Amino acid sequence: MGDSASENSQDKIAEEVSRVVEFAKELQDSASTLIAKASSEEQALRQRVVSLDSNIQKLRSSIDSAVKNSTLDHKESEKLDEELYKARCILTDGDASSYLPSKYNGSFLKMFLGPINVRANRKDIQLKVKQEYNGYRDRTAFLFLLLPSALLFLGSKLWNGCLPALPVQLYQAWLLFLYTSLALRENILRANGSDIRPWWIYHHYCAMVMALISLTWEIKGQPDCVNKQRGVKLFLIWAIMQGFAMILQNRYQRQRLYTRIALGKARRMDVVWGETAGVEGQLLLLCPVLFILQGFEAFVGLLLLRTVRDGVVSEWQVVVCGILLVVMAVGNFTHTVETLMAKSRVKAKIKRTKSKPDLDQAKRLR
Amino acid sequence: MGDSASENSQDKIAEEVSRVVEFAKELQDSASTLIAKASSEEQALRQRVVSLDSNIQKLRSSIDSAVKNSTLDHKESEKLDEELYKARCILTDGDASSYLPSKYNGSFLKMFLGPINVRANRKDIQLKVKQEYNGYRDRTAFLFLLLPSALLFLGSKLWNGCLPALPVQLYQAWLLFLYTSLALRENILRANGSDIRPWWIYHHYCAMVMALISLTWEIKGQPDCVNKQRGVKLFLIWAIMQGFAMILQNRYQRQRLYTRIALGKARRMDVVWGETAGVEGQLLLLCPVLFILQGFEAFVGLLLLRTVRDGVVSEWQVVVCGILLVVMAVGNFTHTVETLMAKSRVKAKIKRTKSKPDLDQAKRLR
Repeated sequence: MGDSASENSQDKIAEEVSRVVEFAKELQDSASTLIAKASSEEQALRQRVVSLDSNIQKLRSSIDSAVKNSTLDHKESEKLDEELYKARCILTDGDASSYLPSKYNGSFLKMFLGPINVRANRKDIQLKVKQEYNGYRDRTAFLFLLLPSALLFLGSKLWNGCLPALPVQLYQAWLLFLYTSLALRENILRANGSDIRPWWIYHHYCAMVMALISLTWEIKGQPDCVNKQRGVKLFLIWAIMQGFAMILQNRYQRQRLYTRIALGKARRMDVVWGETAGVEGQLLLLCPVLFILQGFEAFVGLLLLRTVRDGVVSEWQVVVCGILLVVMAVGNFTHTVETLMAKSRVKAKIKRTKSKPDLDQAKRLR
Repeated sequence: MGDSASENSQDKIAEEVSRVVEFAKELQDSASTLIAKASSEEQALRQRVVSLDSNIQKLRSSIDSAVKNSTLDHKESEKLDEELYKARCILTDGDASSYLPSKYNGSFLKMFLGPINVRANRKDIQLKVKQEYNGYRDRTAFLFLLLPSALLFLGSKLWNGCLPALPVQLYQAWLLFLYTSLALRENILRANGSDIRPWWIYHHYCAMVMALISLTWEIKGQPDCVNKQRGVKLFLIWAIMQGFAMILQNRYQRQRLYTRIALGKARRMDVVWGETAGVEGQLLLLCPVLFILQGFEAFVGLLLLRTVRDGVVSEWQVVVCGILLVVMAVGNFTHTVETLMAKSRVKAKIKRTKSKPDLDQAKRLR
């Protein structure tokens, strides 16, 4: 009887096993069917999206040529342009955007990661990536302020104005990692349709190069330490400034993103309006501070170059870092000004479109 | 009449524009419908895949306990185990694998890229990622051999045994970039289901740290340059060895991958068989060379440590690099041995399962 029970259990297990194998085969079939079906449906939608996109472009150019031939008056063409803009926004901001041909990843990402797809295919996930990026910036901004301040403080209190090499180099390695990861994440955001201006990414490339160069920068000790380490100290002061700029920018950017998310599927025009409305006050604070920091950045760069001219420090690293700082300061300044001008143009346009219905209302009230 | 023609064209454009807007709205609707439908279908399949996976695990443990209670004999259990293995292979190697819960990306990727999805959801794209990675290794392996050789050659011929700092540091920066990108790509491969052993990734982390440290390593010049630069030269010699190991491993790995792709949707058992069959001869060449290189790596590490003991060079960088080299050599050695042992176990198993049908055939022939 024991034998028959054991045979029973053996049969039962064997049966279960063959059932599992069958099920695995079935699942394999359904998976390949589902993948094939989904990809053909996607392909069809992709084609429709692409053809619509090219239609919008064609219409835009035919409106332009109609205005030139004066077969279309200016006011009418502006209205039609706005309509086209709306259609384009629906396409690029909505769910259909996942079927637009994906933007080229950029050679920076390709260099580090190879040609993989870093694009989320759903809008809510894309926004989450952005949110996570902002969180990352927040978490690092305080370290960004804290670490160089601590080094400078300890340098003057504990180390009698003569920084030891290891903590400074650890900090520089951290900076290199941080800028690399920021540059990678920003490229990923761009691939996900974010409209980060390219300059801010180039700026992080420059900062990466600077952190890398600073690592090769020999940190000389006694005697005459204070003079020899002047370049290192200027570098640390620049880093503290960067920390300030980052914290301020983070506050501003977060506010903008919250507005965007809250507005949800609103049209882009509304989003821009919301952005400008919500953070007007912050921008008033941010801009002068940014300009002061940029001026200071250029000043530090020039100081570095002067230490070389005066013969205090003579390494090539100091020269290159000085030039990079000046380049970054000038680039930051011109791009901040450009951004401000773009914002004021948008504001003017919104005012214009808002005043029209007011006029209509005024007419009706009369 | 000119006016009516212009009005005509104006109407036509306006009509087109409103049609485009309508079409954009339609596309937005179809896109969101398609996304919702696809994600619900995927969700359903995902649940079935997960439940099958847990069923396989449950059955495996019930087979084990049945063997322990002797309600199942050993031979029968082995057969059932093999069937289960087959089911598991169908699940993990086929299209259904995209619906298995995704592996955790790993903290290295998260640190650099944030929590983005780097997983391709189709098997052929996953294989392409692997192919691209192999191509990348090929392209860099020659540089890997060329650059340190050129530095050493120029050092002895052009620079009279005294390397200038800049070219060495440029090379070290390139190494740091290369190891970072390799570590990132390998983590991406792992997330895509590749079975790279974790040690080889840790090995690249160690190499990253070494490249970073070597950047902070002051490259002293005259006088007594030859003695002061002994550490740097040992480092370059290690790099040349790494280049050799890389080229050999690449050849071997590529062969394996081609076999895998050629076998296509074959069961994993076949794939392993194919792997062992196709590259047997290469493995005979690869292993002794790898062992020699590993011995040499440990030797260079010990030499570095000796230069410190002898007081020739006294920087902490040399100590840490020496220790890292020894650690990498020991790790590489133990993991190469482990891999070889695993391969021979698989081979023995294949021989066993292959000899059985032969026996059956022999019986039939009698």
